[in-house]
Amino acid sequence: MPLNTRDRIIETGAEIIHLKGFNHTGIQEILTAAGVPKGSFYNYFKSKEDFGLQIIDYFSAHFKRIAKETLEDTSISPLNRIYGFLTAFMDHFESQNYAGGCPIGNLAQEMGNLSPAFRTKLKESIDMMVDAYSRLLSAAQKDGKISKNLDIRDTASFIVAGWHGAIIQMKLTNNLKPIKNHRKFIFDHILKK
Amino acid sequence: MPLNTRDRIIETGAEIIHLKGFNHTGIQEILTAAGVPKGSFYNYFKSKEDFGLQIIDYFSAHFKRIAKETLEDTSISPLNRIYGFLTAFMDHFESQNYAGGCPIGNLAQEMGNLSPAFRTKLKESIDMMVDAYSRLLSAAQKDGKISKNLDIRDTASFIVAGWHGAIIQMKLTNNLKPIKNHRKFIFDHILKK
Repeated sequence: MPLNTRDRIIETGAEIIHLKGFNHTGIQEILTAAGVPKGSFYNYFKSKEDFGLQIIDYFSAHFKRIAKETLEDTSISPLNRIYGFLTAFMDHFESQNYAGGCPIGNLAQEMGNLSPAFRTKLKESIDMMVDAYSRLLSAAQKDGKISKNLDIRDTASFIVAGWHGAIIQMKLTNNLKPIKNHRKFIFDHILKK
Repeated sequence: MPLNTRDRIIETGAEIIHLKGFNHTGIQEILTAAGVPKGSFYNYFKSKEDFGLQIIDYFSAHFKRIAKETLEDTSISPLNRIYGFLTAFMDHFESQNYAGGCPIGNLAQEMGNLSPAFRTKLKESIDMMVDAYSRLLSAAQKDGKISKNLDIRDTASFIVAGWHGAIIQMKLTNNLKPIKNHRKFIFDHILKK
């Protein structure tokens, strides 16, 4: 089924914004790439900011889908699910030549201070990531696989933050070394008994 | 001594780019804020990219100055110097209402994939940060204050990456919680014997 016009604008916009950032991407550029007639944008979106907020929803839904597939696969132990989740992203980043990174991390960095509406929605999205890790860390802690002294939510926040920071370094090194380093430190020093 | 025109453009540009990003900041906007006549920009800079590269030098020099003051104060133990360095940035971020963050981390995220010239220079800047931490970690390791099994450079990279990621979260929470959490995990789990 072909995408309707609104979804075509969202998908094309998401792809361009992921690589170039929100403010650096023009509406006209998106409409041209999407093959949508000029002027139809405002039939679907109140403003560029409104469009950006819907792009965040699109990225969050995408993350949720991937998280559901890998993080909720109960045939694998909680810690192995986290390990596999990070590894799957590495494969993805490699296939993208290390460009793009995490679209939510990118927008948080770019827009967190510039738009309260973006900030609120991006915070919800990061919280959703932290929630996903927290559930697994809780299960691992219950199984005695990680220290009972770890605060689950703080640990999950630390993992997500370090991941976003390692992605920043990946964009400079053009290889997986920074995010492999992140995974190694998390598993060698934090997620152990 | 009043700044010369070139330095006035750099200082004003750095301040605006720190808050808004590189691509979102126009040359005219900088010249107006700096009170410099339109058209004089190209007397000093070959292009906006050339200007951006000199802005990175400006930020790196600024970091180097602060690092020199706090990280090289041999009256304090190496680990306490790192702790104090992170704490000094917390005070600074608080005074800025959590806006801006690390200008080098910001530009790495925004420009790492978009400009090879930016990437090279930003990588040098991040390497310089990693070097600064590495020297202190080496000294702490020699003193037996941290595990002898830690790879110094990987540890320094992990600290810098996590810091930049925590700053991203700070821009959403509008408080110091994420970067305090980073410092806590680094000192409780990594920088210990």
